Amino acid sequence: MLPENPSERRFEDYAVGAVFEFGSVALTQDEIVAFARQYDPQDMHTDPALAAAGPHGGIIASGWQTMGVMMRLFTEHYLPKNGLAAPGVDEVRWPRPVFPGDTLRVRVTILEARRSRSKPDRGLVHPFVEVLNQHGEQVLTVKPINMIRCRNA
Amino acid sequence: MLPENPSERRFEDYAVGAVFEFGSVALTQDEIVAFARQYDPQDMHTDPALAAAGPHGGIIASGWQTMGVMMRLFTEHYLPKNGLAAPGVDEVRWPRPVFPGDTLRVRVTILEARRSRSKPDRGLVHPFVEVLNQHGEQVLTVKPINMIRCRNA
Repeated sequence: MLPENPSERRFEDYAVGAVFEFGSVALTQDEIVAFARQYDPQDMHTDPALAAAGPHGGIIASGWQTMGVMMRLFTEHYLPKNGLAAPGVDEVRWPRPVFPGDTLRVRVTILEARRSRSKPDRGLVHPFVEVLNQHGEQVLTVKPINMIRCRNA
Repeated sequence: MLPENPSERRFEDYAVGAVFEFGSVALTQDEIVAFARQYDPQDMHTDPALAAAGPHGGIIASGWQTMGVMMRLFTEHYLPKNGLAAPGVDEVRWPRPVFPGDTLRVRVTILEARRSRSKPDRGLVHPFVEVLNQHGEQVLTVKPINMIRCRNA
């Protein structure tokens, strides 16, 4: 069980096999275009006319904005407060596009959790994270590597 | 040689072994906090007092904002205009933190390029992308998978 209070979450609470679901968030076309103009100015994300003529039939969200939506929910509902920086993530995939108005939720499944050998005050947790749309389809999957402080160091 | 005009860039221009460098961009603390409040509200990115007491001695940028800085430069200097959506990226790593005022540039090395077997109008290009700070140190590495339209389909 993950403590509801993010300040109380510790490595020992992240059990292999545990599944968490949270959300939802929808992005407007204006939010999609605004993010992309700053951080991913590709026409499929910023130019409604070119996007309408393209393979998706309209504007789609930057995959990095979908990642940001996931990360906000992941921080609020899953990570400890005042935690440690993550060393990285593996296997980011965007199996389907995210359109304006799509309702996104997050599912986290813990694949692996082990104490650090070199730093006994923390553990490494490897979840599989899915972002699902209103049809239950995956729009983002990613395998983060999270360092979490231990309760009993 | 990659055509300077992004509209002219095609699969045939992305040669294995080619190296591209571009940038630079610096983030202010205000920009770091504003991004993180929306997309990665962890204290190390949003709370100057907690961050100052933490392992980095101050606010550090969300790794996803560093990715966004990379992506904007990657779009402007490397990708074709009006291109195709990417299926994903592999091996995202943040070896060092990004601090306010750090000057970031991007280095792209093309590792692999092959035509799609199923869709002969495009090819798959696998670069290794590094974001380097003003000391030449890696702050982000990532292996994107890019689908690029062919000149000769």
